[in-house]
Amino acid sequence: MAKVKKQPRPKAITPKGFRDYFGEEVSQRSEMLQAIAGVYHRYGFDALESSAVETVEALGKFLPDVDRPNEGVFAWQEYDEGGNGDWMALRYDLTAPLARVYAQHRNDLPTPYRRYAMGPVWRNEKPGPGRYRQFYQCDADTVGTASMAADAEICAMLSDTLETVGIPRGDYLVRVNNRKVLNGVLEAMGLEAGDAKRDDVLRTIDKFDKVGEAGVRELLTKGRLDASGAFIDGVGLSDDQAAPVLAFLTSKGADAAKTLANLSEAVGSSSIGAEGVGELEQIGDLLAAGGYGADRIDIDPSVVRGLGYYTGPVYEAELTFEILDEKGRKRQFGSVSGGGRYDDLVKRFTGQEVPATGVSIGVDRLLAALREKGRIKAEATGPVVVTVMDKARMADYQAMVAELRNAGIRAEVYLGNPKNFGNQLKYADKRNSPIAVIEGGEEKDRGVVQIKDLILGAQIAENATLEEWKERPSQFEMPRGDLVAKVREILAGQG
Amino acid sequence: MAKVKKQPRPKAITPKGFRDYFGEEVSQRSEMLQAIAGVYHRYGFDALESSAVETVEALGKFLPDVDRPNEGVFAWQEYDEGGNGDWMALRYDLTAPLARVYAQHRNDLPTPYRRYAMGPVWRNEKPGPGRYRQFYQCDADTVGTASMAADAEICAMLSDTLETVGIPRGDYLVRVNNRKVLNGVLEAMGLEAGDAKRDDVLRTIDKFDKVGEAGVRELLTKGRLDASGAFIDGVGLSDDQAAPVLAFLTSKGADAAKTLANLSEAVGSSSIGAEGVGELEQIGDLLAAGGYGADRIDIDPSVVRGLGYYTGPVYEAELTFEILDEKGRKRQFGSVSGGGRYDDLVKRFTGQEVPATGVSIGVDRLLAALREKGRIKAEATGPVVVTVMDKARMADYQAMVAELRNAGIRAEVYLGNPKNFGNQLKYADKRNSPIAVIEGGEEKDRGVVQIKDLILGAQIAENATLEEWKERPSQFEMPRGDLVAKVREILAGQG
Repeated sequence: MAKVKKQPRPKAITPKGFRDYFGEEVSQRSEMLQAIAGVYHRYGFDALESSAVETVEALGKFLPDVDRPNEGVFAWQEYDEGGNGDWMALRYDLTAPLARVYAQHRNDLPTPYRRYAMGPVWRNEKPGPGRYRQFYQCDADTVGTASMAADAEICAMLSDTLETVGIPRGDYLVRVNNRKVLNGVLEAMGLEAGDAKRDDVLRTIDKFDKVGEAGVRELLTKGRLDASGAFIDGVGLSDDQAAPVLAFLTSKGADAAKTLANLSEAVGSSSIGAEGVGELEQIGDLLAAGGYGADRIDIDPSVVRGLGYYTGPVYEAELTFEILDEKGRKRQFGSVSGGGRYDDLVKRFTGQEVPATGVSIGVDRLLAALREKGRIKAEATGPVVVTVMDKARMADYQAMVAELRNAGIRAEVYLGNPKNFGNQLKYADKRNSPIAVIEGGEEKDRGVVQIKDLILGAQIAENATLEEWKERPSQFEMPRGDLVAKVREILAGQG
Repeated sequence: MAKVKKQPRPKAITPKGFRDYFGEEVSQRSEMLQAIAGVYHRYGFDALESSAVETVEALGKFLPDVDRPNEGVFAWQEYDEGGNGDWMALRYDLTAPLARVYAQHRNDLPTPYRRYAMGPVWRNEKPGPGRYRQFYQCDADTVGTASMAADAEICAMLSDTLETVGIPRGDYLVRVNNRKVLNGVLEAMGLEAGDAKRDDVLRTIDKFDKVGEAGVRELLTKGRLDASGAFIDGVGLSDDQAAPVLAFLTSKGADAAKTLANLSEAVGSSSIGAEGVGELEQIGDLLAAGGYGADRIDIDPSVVRGLGYYTGPVYEAELTFEILDEKGRKRQFGSVSGGGRYDDLVKRFTGQEVPATGVSIGVDRLLAALREKGRIKAEATGPVVVTVMDKARMADYQAMVAELRNAGIRAEVYLGNPKNFGNQLKYADKRNSPIAVIEGGEEKDRGVVQIKDLILGAQIAENATLEEWKERPSQFEMPRGDLVAKVREILAGQG
């Protein structure tokens, strides 16, 4: 037979910007998603899982540039004899697929349609540290109702969700603002829809988190020297013209009534502004009726993220406890979720405006927060490891793990080469095992097993002999018949 | 302002061969995956989630043909100024990524490495009825050990998994075969490795499930008329030469010992054959020690699926109960899982042979089986719906659903336009609601609410008036304060 020409070996690497998740990283995310799904479900939201692949058309991108077909999304052309195959792409969020699904299935779906969706999305962007091209999103949206009750409900659900996954009351705050109020403020300033300065003002407001009130005032008026010494041109408003925006951003009062009064003043005679204030009032009333006070959900006009994108209420969940950043400075953990109302979701497909409101939770940030607070362990306890002292008696060891598993205890038998006992201990160490079980020929003859409490015991020396290791006080001998009971007892003690 | 030129509306459709999953379809699959993960975890397997995207190189495809870059997989070229960007592709299974991950991270992973993985995979194949281009796989593999204990453990785990998700003992069977035994049989027939007829025999054996013993005999020898009347050429063996293969396929005896004796006879003096028989014997002994009898896991040489692919033990889980097919004929539900040993997993990357064994469960087929048997409902009960009789009292209704949810009861307030009460009832119907709650102004004044048991009650007529509807006997009036208790009582009764 002719020899097959050897191919060079492929490289065992992920594509740039992608990564693998191991063990607890996967399980903990999965548990969190289940917990969140439980809350969403209790609120009447139904699961939706659309496929990862959508037509480029449905995702809302124009036919990709032939030279850069992957701009922003990962896209490819379906093979077709004539080269006219459809362009397909990986979804870049869960909102665009919701729009497509609602437009496609609207006659079969309830109105309003409450749905949640969880899963990876893909971005064809330059990867960076901690910035991956595949990551999870976890969304809940209500489509088909303009009622503020839908927005209030999502804020309440967000609050419940955070507490359910382990963020206690007081460690988070859901803050609510409204785009219509800002529109009212812009109207009060004489900047009507279509005025180019409106966009400038919106862009400037977005910097409020970073530069604060004084910074925004400078940027709205004459300009500002930034931290690096560079001069940033201002929007060119007069101090008087800029005043309503600043009043809006700083209108948070001692209670909701005071905040709403401040906002009413800021929007002056603008009817859209009054509508926005009214919406915030409704949301506040509904939440109060459900028992959600300002310690959980608060009206706060300084929430500016997303104000440019959303059309009505905007909400954001922040974790308010402090952590140390990479330079050892204290800072608030910050935002883990955001959302709001957008009314043009389905219009692209059907021509009809369909009101919708929704929220997205940053699951990986929330997991990081819980690890930061020590609420979940980065590395969980591994399985009980039954060591193999006599290869020919593998069936005995299998019987032990079967007993342990039937009692609900995570357990495995060592399946590597059992010759070197030290390797078995190294393995148990690598597995983060709480307990090792040993039954040599001598133990077998006497009807006993040895149990080693690996948590209680000291670190296992890499080359410890079986004899040295047996001397340690955290090792017990017991009748073989007591195996399950004793393991359960030790595990409970390790709790 | 200049008018923006209108784009034609995008079509709200999935790409060909993709579909959306709604509500219970998603939740039930998710619950099943959780249940399976629980068993895998108890067996010491760790979760692994690799990204959906791999380099084409790592997936084991050669650089795609420029004219058909998507053959078999969905692939695209990373943008690069010079057009030399890497080719990336969506994974087509969970085994190729495991090989890449193990080769990449082998120094950090325990040896042996037990891992499970669950998630969608993508195939660029012609879609058909019930055949989608994205579907779920659910795999468990042990990498880095040649021990038969690894194979036995996976068979036991498969048995436990099926019982955990709701297939009772007696309704399934895990059957085990071994490729080495077949190799021994081929050797005994004088067909050494490299003989072209070996492949012909393997291909023929694959048809055993369909054409049975007599059919395989004809196909191995002189050929056969198939059901359509077409003549299929035979492999051209003599009856004597074909005999050992047929003996192998039909060697199942009354118990494992008898089967193994039959197999020993079929492989004659072949050493590889004897090795295979020995492996089956070891697996049988290990399983017996763990309490897994032939009612759960059985050695059965008629299992031929995958024999061409795997290198040692091969296993398959079949559901043994009968269902009616689309033509109303009784047939066995059939295979829901398969796996086996393959020793060339990592060699492509590292040059070293790494033994591995693993199993894949067809989650969607398993779900279909449970629905078929009535073990899970295709459509679950929806949320309690609190209707809106007075739009201005939305806060009252929100307070009701908050109370219900705090008691762990799935509940929602109607968020559509409340004007037409009939629409609210239609909505509750579409939501598959068990209970509707009604509180009009008159009820409010008297401090009561109405509860309508929608399961007990008759179908709600599409245009029933509130008055007609109230007359029905399945509707109760009670003090507002009893709401949660009464709803809980009715739900428990509906059980």
